[in-house]
Amino acid sequence: MTSLGDKGEGHRETTGSWTQVSCPCCVSEQVEPLVLIQLSDNIQPVTKRWLISLIEVSERDGGAALLAHPGEDECGDVIVVSAPRCTLLRATEDLGLCKKYHNGDMVAFSYNDRDNFRNVDDMQEFLTLAERQCIVKYELDFLRAQKGQKIPGVPESQGVLKARENICQKLEKAGVIKDIFPLHDKQRLTDLCRNWYSGKQIWGQPLDSIQAYFGGTVGFYFSFLDFYTWALVPPAILGLVLTFLLPGGGSGAGVVKEQAGGVVEVDDSPSVSGHMVQAVFSMLWSTLVMEFWKRRSSSLSHSWGLLHLAERFAEPRPGFHGTLGINPVTGRLEPLFPEWQRQLRVGLVSVPLVGFFLGMVVLGMTGFYHGEALAQGFHQDSGSLFSGSLLYLPSVAHIVYTNMLGNVYRTVAMQLTEWENHREESSFQNHHTTKVLLFTFFNYFAVLFHIAFYKQDLPLLRKRLASLLIVTQLVNQCTEVVVPFIVDRFFSAPQKKQQEDDPNVDKLRAQRSLPPFPGLFAEYIELLVQFGYLSLFSCVYPLTAVLLLLNNVTEIRADAYKICKLFRKPFSAPVSNIGVWQTAFEVLGFVSVMSNCWLLLLSPRVREFCLEGGISGRNIILFAILVEHVLILVKMILAFMIPDEPDWVRIKREQIEFHSMQALGQQVRGLSL
Amino acid sequence: MTSLGDKGEGHRETTGSWTQVSCPCCVSEQVEPLVLIQLSDNIQPVTKRWLISLIEVSERDGGAALLAHPGEDECGDVIVVSAPRCTLLRATEDLGLCKKYHNGDMVAFSYNDRDNFRNVDDMQEFLTLAERQCIVKYELDFLRAQKGQKIPGVPESQGVLKARENICQKLEKAGVIKDIFPLHDKQRLTDLCRNWYSGKQIWGQPLDSIQAYFGGTVGFYFSFLDFYTWALVPPAILGLVLTFLLPGGGSGAGVVKEQAGGVVEVDDSPSVSGHMVQAVFSMLWSTLVMEFWKRRSSSLSHSWGLLHLAERFAEPRPGFHGTLGINPVTGRLEPLFPEWQRQLRVGLVSVPLVGFFLGMVVLGMTGFYHGEALAQGFHQDSGSLFSGSLLYLPSVAHIVYTNMLGNVYRTVAMQLTEWENHREESSFQNHHTTKVLLFTFFNYFAVLFHIAFYKQDLPLLRKRLASLLIVTQLVNQCTEVVVPFIVDRFFSAPQKKQQEDDPNVDKLRAQRSLPPFPGLFAEYIELLVQFGYLSLFSCVYPLTAVLLLLNNVTEIRADAYKICKLFRKPFSAPVSNIGVWQTAFEVLGFVSVMSNCWLLLLSPRVREFCLEGGISGRNIILFAILVEHVLILVKMILAFMIPDEPDWVRIKREQIEFHSMQALGQQVRGLSL
Repeated sequence: MTSLGDKGEGHRETTGSWTQVSCPCCVSEQVEPLVLIQLSDNIQPVTKRWLISLIEVSERDGGAALLAHPGEDECGDVIVVSAPRCTLLRATEDLGLCKKYHNGDMVAFSYNDRDNFRNVDDMQEFLTLAERQCIVKYELDFLRAQKGQKIPGVPESQGVLKARENICQKLEKAGVIKDIFPLHDKQRLTDLCRNWYSGKQIWGQPLDSIQAYFGGTVGFYFSFLDFYTWALVPPAILGLVLTFLLPGGGSGAGVVKEQAGGVVEVDDSPSVSGHMVQAVFSMLWSTLVMEFWKRRSSSLSHSWGLLHLAERFAEPRPGFHGTLGINPVTGRLEPLFPEWQRQLRVGLVSVPLVGFFLGMVVLGMTGFYHGEALAQGFHQDSGSLFSGSLLYLPSVAHIVYTNMLGNVYRTVAMQLTEWENHREESSFQNHHTTKVLLFTFFNYFAVLFHIAFYKQDLPLLRKRLASLLIVTQLVNQCTEVVVPFIVDRFFSAPQKKQQEDDPNVDKLRAQRSLPPFPGLFAEYIELLVQFGYLSLFSCVYPLTAVLLLLNNVTEIRADAYKICKLFRKPFSAPVSNIGVWQTAFEVLGFVSVMSNCWLLLLSPRVREFCLEGGISGRNIILFAILVEHVLILVKMILAFMIPDEPDWVRIKREQIEFHSMQALGQQVRGLSL
Repeated sequence: MTSLGDKGEGHRETTGSWTQVSCPCCVSEQVEPLVLIQLSDNIQPVTKRWLISLIEVSERDGGAALLAHPGEDECGDVIVVSAPRCTLLRATEDLGLCKKYHNGDMVAFSYNDRDNFRNVDDMQEFLTLAERQCIVKYELDFLRAQKGQKIPGVPESQGVLKARENICQKLEKAGVIKDIFPLHDKQRLTDLCRNWYSGKQIWGQPLDSIQAYFGGTVGFYFSFLDFYTWALVPPAILGLVLTFLLPGGGSGAGVVKEQAGGVVEVDDSPSVSGHMVQAVFSMLWSTLVMEFWKRRSSSLSHSWGLLHLAERFAEPRPGFHGTLGINPVTGRLEPLFPEWQRQLRVGLVSVPLVGFFLGMVVLGMTGFYHGEALAQGFHQDSGSLFSGSLLYLPSVAHIVYTNMLGNVYRTVAMQLTEWENHREESSFQNHHTTKVLLFTFFNYFAVLFHIAFYKQDLPLLRKRLASLLIVTQLVNQCTEVVVPFIVDRFFSAPQKKQQEDDPNVDKLRAQRSLPPFPGLFAEYIELLVQFGYLSLFSCVYPLTAVLLLLNNVTEIRADAYKICKLFRKPFSAPVSNIGVWQTAFEVLGFVSVMSNCWLLLLSPRVREFCLEGGISGRNIILFAILVEHVLILVKMILAFMIPDEPDWVRIKREQIEFHSMQALGQQVRGLSL
């Protein structure tokens, strides 16, 4: 039973009690543990044996064609899973991954043509670790019952599988499987950390290695973070110039007071042009950044072989349900759900419900302001200790209300998205993200918009923005990194020490003690909110970009440390871009035009400047509208003019399209269609 | 020499002096004359023989692999061209046309797999007449000199071909070829006319037959005209209801006068809501129409087999030039021109130049108003006969100026687009159309926008709109149809009579006497201007839609009569949609939101309504901006929510993508990549 032996060179295991492979080409001396299935503590050996046999049986017989290892003994509560070569290669084709052809091009992998691909004999080189783990997950996810049957060793009430039911989902519901997660590879992880944050690498990140180790979504997040941080340099320089070189350029020091009659106290004249420059710059900057990111993203996607993912033609995601039928495109038997019905659900139920919750946020905010005014009035009238403590009531009530609303909303958003019944995982993710995103964004920005558009109080906006930028960043960095770091260093350290000499199974099992990775949503929303502060309101506070730049330089290292050390390794599906976040940033760019034009209109200096020029108030507004429309047009033209992918990527993509068209032409389809 | 014999059943010709086919499968008893090449009067027999031999020689030897017929004798000034089966089939694959597979699906045609396609033995059934003629044109267009050579019978100064030079272009420049045009098929044309406009078909048009006879662009134009006319019914009904059932609903009768103090004379209250209903309706209507047209367009495109055109992978358009090189996508030797250079030319030269000309239009208009004011003042001062005649001077000068500017612009637009050096014909057409379109549109609407936005005079706008709608439509219908009809009926009739008993060659040649078809640009711009009147300003004059509907019902018959009888048959390339016109209509839809919001703001009744409600002027404007932004958002969401193609078309498209991906996977590419 010395199965998961010491890791030698190449990080492979000897095939001790690993299940046997049926295919001769897949026999290898060492098997690499990829994924750990955590079973319930009181699992019956008969259930575990049944599960292992399912994992190892070939796909033709309804299995996953993977390799399983029962851990230290047959009664243990883990199964370690790996994948033989043939399964990996077939899944690579199913997923539509591109790999290096013998001539160096990236070509969609084809099992029939496998011998023409580079490194096809060495799975460690051919597929990245993240891809291998993803494939194991993919195979496990699509284990379906061949016929109705009872799960051995599980009570009748929970353990009956219907034909074509998803087995892993069922076992998770029945409590047999507690968790499935990919395993860290200590050696590779140490190498990655050295190159990433603990070494001398200051200016860049090893993006390719990150993608290889953690997979597509994580790779794209860090690439975007990197790109975005570099993109902050020009606005930061502009902000510094406007604040320190041009006097009165809109900094906090130069606040002017508007008097009752509309006459305005002025200190300097360049402030107007500084304001304008900052506003116009940030509007165009946001478009340019997103356009160039699209280009960067598509070239990354090409070099990582993720440009032609075949998600549309693959099996639907595990949670997808519908009446069984023949998929008209692929001709395979699978659950079907008509697209128009999904559209109806989104349009008639999800959209109004989300709107309702956004309305509740606004309601909460107005309630808060109303309550505060009431409490203030009451306190001024009575002045007692009781009324003084009442002053805090609106804030407390608002915080409680917001939190409760947020929790309810998260549940509703998840269930709505499940109910929308998306066929593809990416579509599910995008719809879910959009819902949560809208709400979170509204929560963050409602107050600022209220101050800017309703109260129309620029100095307050400036103060609020500066404090938000500084306070939230400090709080974020603390909660995200410092606290887990301390917990990790001082509280879990003894436990870790103990394990150094343990058998390998225990080392693997030790990864269970780490908390699961919370996902990238919070990270992206942080960036989006930053981007919002910068593009929506930065003309009020030009130092925004400088603060954000400082924050992001530490953020990169902190995020890297977090994902490497503080959490369990996450599964990360192959994706070809950052998905709906791209759209969110772009939409923000357009909203920024409106808010900047409005802020310019409010700015006392601009007003004064116009009054001096003899322009009436009505005409200023009309002029602002004109400027806004023209700027939106310019942004749209810019976005249209800059191609979304570099020429060389376009050529590669067209090459593949051309070849597949040719292949279709050369093939005599006969009756197969 | 009784070559182009009497047309028997099936409209075919006996192979008299047609050139021989080399391929045994292409031998057929009758050859159908497809295209006529009109040579210069003084053509040398040696040149004609050389050209005929080029046309008939196989593609391997640098010919077009077509069939040629020298007309009545070897000295005549025409060559009639037809195409053998193999050439037709190969070109069908090159163009990427879809044809009916044996199981009834539309599948991209493949020469290797030809036996599985329906009707593949009968070219008359397999390809439409327009497609056959297009293929002949396509083959002639790509005749290129194999090596440098002299054209026999043409003076040395004009008659030297460089290697790979386009032969037809060269011959046209040298004056040897005067014209190339497709031939009408009298029998089919008579059938088509009966079904189209002279029979009892009142409610619909035989769109499939139109597309088959005239080809893609013409087919799409009439389909769009049809669709758009039906789409006019709801706004026409609304307009009638608002005008006649709801009193004072914004019709010309209910003009109110604003008094000096801002107090407004009111007649009825429903007018405000009528106004609003009309404005909001027309904004949403324009989006819905264009979205549903996209769906209609894609399903037409699928059923006509035009959904997967391979223009990108085909030979570049004849006018395209560049350094010879290997196309990185297809691997063929052809002229190359980098995309970024084209983008630069468009962005840095074309866009500013077009902007300059648009500026000149505005300059002309302001000059006109200025001049008119001057002339009026002068006339009032002096009151002489001379000064009275001077009153006409600004108008005359403006008309002359506009005409000259238009002519210069047309030349500039064509040359700029040539210079941009587009690889694909559709891209060329789109860029050229956009340029001319912008200018024409500016010319039409500048005055209306001036009245609406600068003068802010709604009654004048209403008057102007009504007169434009009625007068321009009458004028258009006259110049487009009545005049050519009279000319055709009374002036060319005797000539026509004479030809009834003539030999067939003379009948074909008689088609030369008709003027060439002026293209669909004028037709589309008419529709666009209509659409503009309706969506931009209709809330001022609700009867617009009714007038347009009446106009279009006659327009359909008139256009049909025109294209069938009054002009030479045009070549019409296979296209998969209406191209840039789609975008133009959509952009107009967005502009309409702005103009409608503005017109509502100007409307005296709305103002009065707001003042009654105690809303200040500033807040009205801000409210209007808010409404505008919300409506634009709603339009964008609507456009996003309505899928651009019906589900069944999407499934067919995905089927083809899936099969071509599979074919690529099954193919062992080896060293071919």
